[in-house]
Amino acid sequence: MAGKVFSSVSMSLDGFIAPASLGELMGAQWRELQAWVFPLRSFRERLGLGEGGEEGRDDDIVRATFERTGASVMGRRMLDAGEHAWPEDPPFRAPVFVVTHRPRDPWPRQGGTTFHFVDDPRVALDRAREAAGDRDVRIAGGGAMIDQYLDAGLVDEFTVAVSPVLFGSGIRLFDGVDAGRLGLAQVHAESSRRVTHLTYAVRQR
Amino acid sequence: MAGKVFSSVSMSLDGFIAPASLGELMGAQWRELQAWVFPLRSFRERLGLGEGGEEGRDDDIVRATFERTGASVMGRRMLDAGEHAWPEDPPFRAPVFVVTHRPRDPWPRQGGTTFHFVDDPRVALDRAREAAGDRDVRIAGGGAMIDQYLDAGLVDEFTVAVSPVLFGSGIRLFDGVDAGRLGLAQVHAESSRRVTHLTYAVRQR
Repeated sequence: MAGKVFSSVSMSLDGFIAPASLGELMGAQWRELQAWVFPLRSFRERLGLGEGGEEGRDDDIVRATFERTGASVMGRRMLDAGEHAWPEDPPFRAPVFVVTHRPRDPWPRQGGTTFHFVDDPRVALDRAREAAGDRDVRIAGGGAMIDQYLDAGLVDEFTVAVSPVLFGSGIRLFDGVDAGRLGLAQVHAESSRRVTHLTYAVRQR
Repeated sequence: MAGKVFSSVSMSLDGFIAPASLGELMGAQWRELQAWVFPLRSFRERLGLGEGGEEGRDDDIVRATFERTGASVMGRRMLDAGEHAWPEDPPFRAPVFVVTHRPRDPWPRQGGTTFHFVDDPRVALDRAREAAGDRDVRIAGGGAMIDQYLDAGLVDEFTVAVSPVLFGSGIRLFDGVDAGRLGLAQVHAESSRRVTHLTYAVRQR
């Protein structure tokens, strides 16, 4: 049985998922956007931030998101930005297909993550599906990449973790999507004290 | 005891609360945005759409929003747009303070609604607070009006009912707000099958 194609990102209440420039990526707004995830046990463990951390529903959700993911797809800029933040054993622990105009040889890392470089987004997704087997494929980001797959009708469902923060500017999820063509059905919604997880199924129309 | 100042609007997942032009106001997107509210018993009753309708948590929430409101504040364009849609006894059943550059005499309607016309937004709010007594004041809309009061630090809390729809264009909530100055705390979140109600307390920072 083939898995689903999904995405899962934190979003500000005014619709932003990242600051406009990579330089601000570790800035105060972004830390506030992600504040719900940093203390979680599953996140700390995957990002090599040390033992311990909070358990509970947010942690369960993050853990389940990691575990359902049999392969990831990301844009090259996300890799460039992440490389500095991820540990030697990156948090993916599965193949990652990086969409780039300049493919190069695969880059194996510790812990099960290998980055593969592919210039065609559809080929990247096909290879990710194949690598994931019956697990799911995550379109990891950035926003433009998620929008591209959403717009092409290739995403089955997505989750936004709505954080209680206003950005005012930055990169908006859905900015590159033809809104009229995507029908959404709310399939799951759940709140903790810090964040609200909203999951939607996508259909073309 | 003085009541709170709040707002409560439906918002698309991409952050819009209305189409760009009034001409589209009864269009397909807007109907989809509001789809969760039309079938509700409390809404049908207030809007004069007839007996019956759905009960349940969405209905309870809409009823509570009507009942907590001791006075409303709105922009003139909202009155202009609403006038054609509201019945002879408008849904407010309490004083409504309309912010306009061209004040005129109060306009009493059936059922307890009187529209008062005030040129200064702070005076409008002060008069609404006084009229509301220990009940709450709702900044009814439109988006620019809500943003103006939010930005001035005059809103205590607000609710967005996030509908599973993408607009792609239109009027965004928060576009007129200095995001860096507003701190939000998620105080309530609750989902039904159709919509997610998110309530935030606002503090200046």
